[in-house]
Order: sequence, then C-alpha cells, then structure tokens
Amino acid sequence: MPRDPRYDILFEPVKIGPVTTRNRFYQVPHCNGMGYRDPTALATMRAIKAEGGWGVVCTEQVEIHPTGDISPFIELRNWSDQDVPALARMADAVHAHGALAGLQLAHNGMNAPNLYSREIPFGPADLPVFSIYDDPVQARAMDKTDIRNLRHWHRAAALRAKAAGYDITYVYAGKLFGGAMFFLSRRHNTRTDEYGGSLENRCRLLKELIEDTKDAVGDTMGVACRISVDELIGPEGLHAAEARDIISHLAEVPDLWDLTLSSWDNDSQTSRFADEGYQEPFVTGVKKLTTKPVVGVGRFTSPDTMVRMIRQGILDLVGAARPSIADPFLPKKVEEGRMEDIRECIGCNMCVSGDHTTTPIRCTQNPSMGEEWRRGWHPERIRAKESDAKVLVVGTGPAGLEAAMMLGRRGYEVALAEATRDLGGRLVAERRLPGLSAWGRVVDYRVGQIDPMANVEVYRESRLTADDVLGFGFAHVAVATGATWRADGIGRRLLRPLPLAEGVEVLTPDDLMAGRRPAAGPVIVFDDDHYYMGGVLAELLAREGREVALVTPNGEASTWMKLTMEQHFVQARLLEVGVSIVPHRLPTRVERGEIELACVYSGRTERRACASIVLVTARLPRKGLAEDLEARRAEWADAGLLSVTRVGDALAPGTIAAAVWAGRRFAEELDAPPRGLDDLPFRREVAGLADGPLPWVAH
Amino acid sequence: MPRDPRYDILFEPVKIGPVTTRNRFYQVPHCNGMGYRDPTALATMRAIKAEGGWGVVCTEQVEIHPTGDISPFIELRNWSDQDVPALARMADAVHAHGALAGLQLAHNGMNAPNLYSREIPFGPADLPVFSIYDDPVQARAMDKTDIRNLRHWHRAAALRAKAAGYDITYVYAGKLFGGAMFFLSRRHNTRTDEYGGSLENRCRLLKELIEDTKDAVGDTMGVACRISVDELIGPEGLHAAEARDIISHLAEVPDLWDLTLSSWDNDSQTSRFADEGYQEPFVTGVKKLTTKPVVGVGRFTSPDTMVRMIRQGILDLVGAARPSIADPFLPKKVEEGRMEDIRECIGCNMCVSGDHTTTPIRCTQNPSMGEEWRRGWHPERIRAKESDAKVLVVGTGPAGLEAAMMLGRRGYEVALAEATRDLGGRLVAERRLPGLSAWGRVVDYRVGQIDPMANVEVYRESRLTADDVLGFGFAHVAVATGATWRADGIGRRLLRPLPLAEGVEVLTPDDLMAGRRPAAGPVIVFDDDHYYMGGVLAELLAREGREVALVTPNGEASTWMKLTMEQHFVQARLLEVGVSIVPHRLPTRVERGEIELACVYSGRTERRACASIVLVTARLPRKGLAEDLEARRAEWADAGLLSVTRVGDALAPGTIAAAVWAGRRFAEELDAPPRGLDDLPFRREVAGLADGPLPWVAH
Repeated sequence: MPRDPRYDILFEPVKIGPVTTRNRFYQVPHCNGMGYRDPTALATMRAIKAEGGWGVVCTEQVEIHPTGDISPFIELRNWSDQDVPALARMADAVHAHGALAGLQLAHNGMNAPNLYSREIPFGPADLPVFSIYDDPVQARAMDKTDIRNLRHWHRAAALRAKAAGYDITYVYAGKLFGGAMFFLSRRHNTRTDEYGGSLENRCRLLKELIEDTKDAVGDTMGVACRISVDELIGPEGLHAAEARDIISHLAEVPDLWDLTLSSWDNDSQTSRFADEGYQEPFVTGVKKLTTKPVVGVGRFTSPDTMVRMIRQGILDLVGAARPSIADPFLPKKVEEGRMEDIRECIGCNMCVSGDHTTTPIRCTQNPSMGEEWRRGWHPERIRAKESDAKVLVVGTGPAGLEAAMMLGRRGYEVALAEATRDLGGRLVAERRLPGLSAWGRVVDYRVGQIDPMANVEVYRESRLTADDVLGFGFAHVAVATGATWRADGIGRRLLRPLPLAEGVEVLTPDDLMAGRRPAAGPVIVFDDDHYYMGGVLAELLAREGREVALVTPNGEASTWMKLTMEQHFVQARLLEVGVSIVPHRLPTRVERGEIELACVYSGRTERRACASIVLVTARLPRKGLAEDLEARRAEWADAGLLSVTRVGDALAPGTIAAAVWAGRRFAEELDAPPRGLDDLPFRREVAGLADGPLPWVAH
Repeated sequence: MPRDPRYDILFEPVKIGPVTTRNRFYQVPHCNGMGYRDPTALATMRAIKAEGGWGVVCTEQVEIHPTGDISPFIELRNWSDQDVPALARMADAVHAHGALAGLQLAHNGMNAPNLYSREIPFGPADLPVFSIYDDPVQARAMDKTDIRNLRHWHRAAALRAKAAGYDITYVYAGKLFGGAMFFLSRRHNTRTDEYGGSLENRCRLLKELIEDTKDAVGDTMGVACRISVDELIGPEGLHAAEARDIISHLAEVPDLWDLTLSSWDNDSQTSRFADEGYQEPFVTGVKKLTTKPVVGVGRFTSPDTMVRMIRQGILDLVGAARPSIADPFLPKKVEEGRMEDIRECIGCNMCVSGDHTTTPIRCTQNPSMGEEWRRGWHPERIRAKESDAKVLVVGTGPAGLEAAMMLGRRGYEVALAEATRDLGGRLVAERRLPGLSAWGRVVDYRVGQIDPMANVEVYRESRLTADDVLGFGFAHVAVATGATWRADGIGRRLLRPLPLAEGVEVLTPDDLMAGRRPAAGPVIVFDDDHYYMGGVLAELLAREGREVALVTPNGEASTWMKLTMEQHFVQARLLEVGVSIVPHRLPTRVERGEIELACVYSGRTERRACASIVLVTARLPRKGLAEDLEARRAEWADAGLLSVTRVGDALAPGTIAAAVWAGRRFAEELDAPPRGLDDLPFRREVAGLADGPLPWVAH
C-alpha cells in the first residue's frame, strides 16, 4: 500500500549543518546495556533501525575520557584510538542501510564516580558526585587547566567520531549526565569566575564545547546540542523559562537542538505515569528561539501526532528512543501505509532495566531487541517453515500469541487454543489494573497480526486435555498455559508456608484480578515480588476506599522498579492515595484480625490490625497439560506427536517481556537443526587479549 | 633475615589429589571486579600473589554455562573454548611464579538471574531467583534432563580448565552461589525424587558433580569442594551439625575441602563486626571427618594464628582472600622473617565493593591492587628516584604517609610535615570510633615503614605556611592536608545551606571526633554521606546514652555499605543500641528544639524534636596552603620550587582507599616523563570484534 499523503511531511529531508537526513524520523541517543562489551551486537541493533527507515540513528552517550567514567554502566567509550574500530562498526552498519549515524559525546562530570578509572571527577564546584550508589567520591572544582583539558579531550573525541565515520556528533548538556549541564545549573555552579554567575557565564563552557566541535568536525558533521528544557523540580532547578534563555543565548551555535527533560526518569516516563507526547508543553516554543532544526521526543507511536508536531511548528524531527526499540521498522511501516503493523511501545521501560543491569536491552513488544546479532533474530523477518508439521499452541497469553504469530509468519499451520473467551492470558486482567492499559498493546498487536492469517486458527473457550491433544494429530505442542500466584506466602524471603490461623482471609493477585475483594477491615498487601504487582494492587484497593498497608522486606515499595526508573513515582502515588508503606518487615503469622510482623534486621516482632492479607510473592507454572502429555509419551508416536514444550510462564513465571521472548524462541527453534549440548545458544564477543610483555609476570 | 623456625610448618607442602602445593598459603577464590572484561589485568594481579609466595592462587568463581549467568556481575566465564585464552593467561602467569593455579567452576543455579543470556534459571524447585535486585525471574525445577545437562556442562568446563593449564578445580556448593548448595538446602529443595528428601539424596547432585570432575580431570588436577559450614540463620538453614553430616557423607569424594560460611556477607565479615579467625568455631572438627586436606579462612594476618590453626589440627591450608589482597607478599615476608613488613588487611571490604560495582578491585592497604598491569604498579617495588629533587609532603593522613613512604623507597629525600603531634590525619580520630580500630593499621604500617628510613624525616607539630615552604628549598611539594566536614548541610541532596534558626546547635563529624558533644536533648544525625560516618556517629552517641535519630533521604542507614556487605549489620546494630532510623526524609529547616523534615516522595513535612543536629553530608578540601603557594608562583623559581600538588582529600575528599591510592600515584608519577594530553593514564583491553558476515547488515 502506498503511504498516505498526510504523512508525506514526515518523509521530508532535514538539513543538519553539512548533512541532510532522508526523513524526519530520528532515533535519539539511547542506552542499551550492550555498550563497549558487545559492540557488534550493538552495531547490528542500530543497523536494523536504519533498515527500518529511521533517518538518523544515534549511539547512546559515549564517554570521551576516563575522567568521565560512569561505571558500573557500560556505555560505549571513545577514550582513544583503541575504541575507533568498535565505533566504526556501528557507523558502517547504519550507513549500509542509508541512515545518518550520530554519536553522542559525553563527559559526565559530577555524575561520573570514576570507579573504573580512579581519576578524580570534576565539575563546577567541590561537591559529592551524583551517582546511582551515592558513592563516597567527591568531585573537585575545575580550574582553568581542567577546562582547557576537557575542551581538548572533547575535541579529540569529536575527531575520533569523524574518523569512525559518523555524520552527526553531540555536545551533551542534558539530564544531569552531560557534564556541561552542571555548569548551567545554578545550584551546582557556584563559581565566581567567568564560568559562573550570570547565564552567559554559566553557558560559557557549553558554548566553547559546541564551537570547538564545530571547528574540529563541523565541515563534514552536524553538531547537535542535547539540552534539558526543565528539571521539574521548581525554581531551584533548571526550569522552562531559564532553559529558553539558555537556548536563546546559544540559538545559532549548534546545528541541531535535541530537547530532553531532566533527569532521565522525567524524560522517559512510563505509560503508567505519563501519556504519549507529555513533553509537548515543555518543547513548544523552542523552535521560535532558533533557526536550527529541533528534535524532541514523547514516546510517539502515532504518526498523526508526529505530523501534528511538525505542522504546528513544535519540532522539525520526530525523536524516538523507546518507540524505535519497540518497532525498529516504524518509519518503513508508515511509508508503506502499513499502519496496523506498527508495534507500539507500551511504555513499560523494560528497555531501561537493561542499562541498569548492564545486560542487553530487551523490549516487551520486540523480542528480537538485543538478539539481532547474537541469535540472528530480526524484528520483521523470520525464516520460512522447514516442514509441514502442524503446531498447536495452547494458551493466548504473551508467549502463546507471539509463538502463534511467528509460526504463522513462517507458514506453519497453527491452531491457537484459548480456554476462556478472551485472548491475552495474564494481560486480559492485568491491562485493566490502574495505569497498565497501554500494556494491552502486547495483545492487540499480536491478535491484529494473527487475525488475517489464513494458516492460524484461533479456538476460544477450548480448554484442552491430554486426550484432546493426542486426538488432534499435531506434531508439535507449545504449552503456554501461564502461571498461578501462590497463596501460601512462599517466595523470595519465606520458603515455608506462612502460618495462617483458620478463617484468615487470604487473597492472591489472581483473586483480585478476577474481581474478588477482601472483606471489610484493614488489608495487608505483602509484597515479596517487588515488581509492579504489589504496588498496583495496593493502589487499586486504596482507590476503592480500603485501608491498605503494603508490607515489604525491602526499604521501599516496588523496589525492582528502580531499574525502570518508576519506583519513586510508585511510592509517591501510593502515599498520595493513602497506602501505608511498611518497610523492612516480614509476616511471621496471621491471626484473625491481626498480623505479626518481624523486622528483617532485628527480628523484633510487632502486631498490626489485619482483616485480610493479599500475598504477592511468587507464582507456580501451570504444568498440568504438559505433565499429562509427558506421562503418556508412549502414545505420542501413534498420535503423530513429536514434541511438547512448555513456553513462557508455564515453564518459569517471569515478566511479560520474557514470555514474549519465549514465544519467539519457540517459533525460531522449531525445526531448527538440533544444537549440540556444547554449542552456546548465542554468539558473543570477548575481550581481546593485550600482547605482552606483561609487567610483573616472569617470562 | 631467615624465617623463624616456628613458622616452618607453614612452608610444608600439601598434597591435593595429584598435585602438591609448595606451602600452606592458599589464596581461596575471590572476586575482583575485573573478571571477563579485564583478563590481563586480572591475570597479572594473580601472578603477583604467586610471586609473593602463595602456594595456590585461585580465580574467582567462574561461570560454566549461560544458564548460570550472574550478570550484572562480570566474574570470569568458562562457557566455551572462546574463553580458554583468557583463562590460560592467568594460569600461565601464576605458574611463572611457581604457584599452583586453581579455577573455581560455578553454576549458580537459582542465584543466577540470567539477565545476559535470557536462559531460564534452574534449581531444585520452582522458586524466584535469589538475586541482588530481586529480579522478576523465577527458576524452574530441574528435571532429569536438566541434571544430565548440568553434569555435562560442568564436566566440559572442567576439561577446559585443564586445557587452560590449571592444577586445581572446584565444585562449588557454598554461599548460596554454587548451585549445588540449593540442592543441599532443605528449605529450597522440596523434591520428592532421588535428588530431594534425605541427606543422601540432597547430596546426590554435589556428589555426582565431584565424581564427574574427578573422572574428567582428576588424573592431573586436584578437585576441591567448596562448601558452607553454616548459614547462621538457625535450624531453617544449613547449620553446623548438618554441614558435618554432609561432609561426612562425602568425606573422601573430593581431594580438598574448602570451608566457607554462608552467605558471602557472613563469610567475609568486616573488622567492625568480627575479629580475625571468627570462623574458627565453625571449622573446628571438620578435619576429623575426612582424610583430605581442609582449607578455611578467617581474615588471617597473624602468622602465629595461622600456625595455631595447623598445629591444633583445625586446618591444613591457610586460606586467605582479603589478607592476600592487602598483602600479596605475606607468605614471602613470613618466609624472610620480615614480620614488621606485613601489610595487614584492615577488614574494611573496600575490595568487595569492586565486585558489586563491576570495577577493578581496590584495597585500602594496597593501592597497587587492580593496577598491576594497567598502571604497572607493584605492591612491593617501585622504580628508583630519577633526580635528586627534595620533596616535602605536608600532612600525615593516608595520602601523605603513603606518598612519603613510597618516595622514601624510591630513594628521594623527603620531609614529612605534620601540623599536630599525631601521625595519621583523619585516622587519628577515625580509628577511635566504634568498630574502626583495625583501620589504624593503615597508619601503623606506614609509620612503621617510614621510621627506619634515613631519607625520610618526620616533623611533628609543624604547621607550614607558604612562607615556610618557599624558604625550605624543596623542589616538589605534596599538599596532603585533608578535608573538613561541612557545617551547612550541603551535600548530595541539599545544594543550598540548610536554614538554621539562630542558636541551633550544629555539629559536624570533626566536632564529634574532636570530643565535642551535643547539649542535652534529642540529637538528629542527618546522613547524606551514606558511607560509614553517619552510622558510626549515631552508634557512638547512642552508646553514650543519647537519644539519637538518624535521618536519611535513603531507605536505610549507611546505604553505600550494601556494597561492602555491611549495611544490614550496621542497621541491626543501630536498632540494637536504640537509634531511630528515619528514612526517606530531608531536613528543610531547623528551629530551636525542633526540626522540619520533608518526605522525599511526597514533599509532606513533619516536625520532630531536635536539640542539636549532626550534619554528615560532604567535605571541603583544605586547599589553603596550595592556594597560597599558587598565588606566589612568581617566587617559585627563586625558591627552587618546581611543583605543588594537592593529594588525597585535599584535592577531592574521598575514601581512605582513594587517599592512599593518590599518595601512591604522586610517588609513582614524580619525575615520570610527562604524559601527553591524549595519552590515557592506564592500559586496558577492549572487546575483540567478531568477523563478519553480520546478519541483517547489508554488505
């Protein structure tokens, strides 16, 4: 289908200094958890975005020098010529698909604890570093030599970016990561020299860095400035009016303005806490301050919103990080008029957790993310079927839907059986929980894709027994029957059932999602899961007017969500709706009307009123069908059955992302040549060993 | 000096299966934060321990397969032949100095969230993984195929360890890291097959793994079993009596028993919470259960204690991780009768923080740790002086003492000036704080080394001015004058002075350490430092009978100490001595008798009684002398002064480890050829790029 003319404007080229994009789709710099450890995996991931039509594809922030070392994070490094081959690999891969390659230079200043390099961090003032662990490291106030050195290193890094083949490079002053932002910030910059005080002075370093970069590489490269337009902390922070003054002051200095909110958690808010385009009020008007093109983000997945951002003169380039992760082919799909094929970001920030755990980026919607090179998965393509085997997929949760969809694409004949009337498995109920409606896109996209497939048949209200399965004549069965929340308290901290007096009302997340509600009186939500479920259910009950306490052995509610940058939003919301958060406590027994809690440090116990308890601890895979079939293995041959595989939560309960990934894996591996026990399931790169002579090692 | 015959027993060889150690000094496996990223740096660090006389030098735990992937940690991998060159580099380097090389195979089972590999973790039962972030990942119960596969992978990894040249390998069932421990554990292993239930059944997997390993490599390699002798959680856990039953059952199966406490935080307790040899009651008697040699640890730094452990038949081999980090040459010093040269571990667990931040291991006592290859530093040797320049070191804190000592070793004429009567700088007072007395070893070792040096002159009670310095004729001056705690509340969270009503009593850590005490009434300790100081001072005041509340914006006291595995001990102790811990709060103003605190999530304020406030936030470097000298740069030439360098806290306040390191760096870099601005200060290894063809990248 040709593209709808109303989207033509998205495909106009934009000039960024000496380079010109092929369209307005701009993948802004984003982290990925692969970084300097996995350069080819990273390069291939970026290449696929170029293949998918993005006009510009950027790196993450790239360290320019060991004095700005953000370990434990593993973002790309551009410290010396030793790094150029890895950087060039990405630029080459992006160019191979016709996009411009951008590299975001970054010296993190007071955000860099320098735990790897052990160099002393520096910034505008003598202050502790602002790092994730509150490391016992202080930065020192830069003197003129430091400023001169920083400028030299930045320039040298820009030249290496050029040598590596990039088209665009950055000066970074955003999110309290780019060190120059600490100079802009009144609360950090207390200098009395020409780099502090007035706005002009606070802008001086940033201006010099941009000018240096343009001087060094501006003849062939576009030079972008990424800057914060608001820190959302009121007048103490960099706020909207001041950001405009800064941009006005530097209006024509860079070739491109890339706008962010600060800090990162504000810039990349999840769908639970912010809607598509929530940055709009903060970026509107910036274009009036400069003739240079402006790029901004907003978790844009709707081409109509993108068009409006251009037509209304808010942005020139449609920036995206997460939407480009969920669908690397978003631009191509708009171009080809395949709007219904767009795999929309659900705004869950699973991607971000990869950066925080320094493991390859994964995406709930796009299971190929991070697997492009290492397993050879592609977000759009999968090899054709290699047999005429018929496949039965039992269960339509994230794993079952993904398996069926990808097997359908491969050309297999697939039956997809659902026990209930609704497709979606766990998401049927979870998407109705407070703040999680966008998560339903995982189901909607897949159901939408499966719907027109002639070779995938969906059977609702079909709860299958082993007898059924053995009677149908399928060669392969994927058992994607999900998991059930435990009702005994066993999970991470408790490994024996929680002692419950008779008559105590115990509910599980499944009960609440099925509509059951605790009897009158105070409710204890015991959260030993630490992802979203405990917090969401506490919120749900509190919004329904219940008196709720969330008891956790950890220090905060939903602690794992620190890795999705949501934890503080969750905790604030729970407090706002009146949930009591009871940290560092484990239930030791539940009586009628009362619960005994023990302090995880001292063991001291206390009692608390409790009419009912909701246990959010662990889940048990629903193995029944798989086990029944296993028990009847002797009958398989007659039934034509070759394999039965538990997939997703039915194998091991995990995230929705993990379930989707497991569905994809099942589809990828069907009829694949068997892997030897000694063959690893993926490719990887390892450290290249230095040549000798090694000091202190006898030879 | 020849060695004292009473230590002869430490130098007896010990047979471990088919291999024989040269002595009883055994560096047990320990992590290092370099791992698979920095293989040559790691190999060189281990080689230096071999050079220092250790009879056996082991790796850290080494992952055997992607199904046991402990990312974000970067421990060595032995997943496939791709890893053998890096593994061999270490074995070769250790052999070059005559030690045996040991490799600890590890499959972490339910401790492995597999965030890198995305494989499903497995263990004895369907349970959540026990990982540092409470990752939303559940392990699945292993079936017989899984057990067969695990055994195959373990065997294959042992064969690769052999191919890489190791002499000893391990089966790991300790600390809840080694996956086999989950099978031993009654609370995790609820299986009803032959791998669960009875002790014999729970031991089956471990026994099979040991037997497999002996079968595969036991002809040439010693096969050790590392096992937990107590989890210290009472009868629910693996306790002493049960551990003995297990060891009895498997008594003769391995070639060596390596004993640990579980979990790691119990095994590696700091000097603040446990004394040297605190494992003794747990390991005593194990030798009676087996004819095989036994190795155990206990932060041993005293050779007399080591001898006693052997003579009393408690251990055969003196295990050490931390003492071998603080002094890689400990065995050689015992052998050479240089007891006063032993650099004793202070038990601060700074080393452990490297593992937790995946950055190279550092040591407060041994600044060369982690720098052996990358900067060419050696724990015992440093190149001779390259000029006859005289050097003045001002200040005798950790930085000044280290600089003076190492410059003295280089042969420079050094004057070391101390303003007070006491040597030690910050440690003069800090070593007197509750639990920190062992930290004084940083001073005692260096003072002991400097004392006999004819070329280092110590001047006490010598507070120097710029006039003094310019009059003395020194070529180089190291200003190591330390830092002062701020009294205005500025630190990480507050960047403007805390509003204080007139007459409010404010104290800093310096005040308390100088002996000042708050007036009567409730004391608030505001901790925005998050390392030990806030917690230690709260403990000090509470022990003196004061009513103390520790206010922190974080969820717990002393949160950074999670990285030294002490946080929960700190919190328990504070609760025990009656300190109220007030989390998630920031002071917004202090009135007479009252403090206003704001919730960091909601901003809601509350008031609390407060007679005085102790501010533990940030420090300011004492720059005075350096700035005065800088201001008189014109006079330098006449005075013969070539350089003035701030070193340690006087440059940027940090840890004691960082100060010692800075002193070393000053000594290393004096008279070194100047480094170009583009030269990095250290060597590193980067990922070796895979050869094409790359999937999905056009060519």
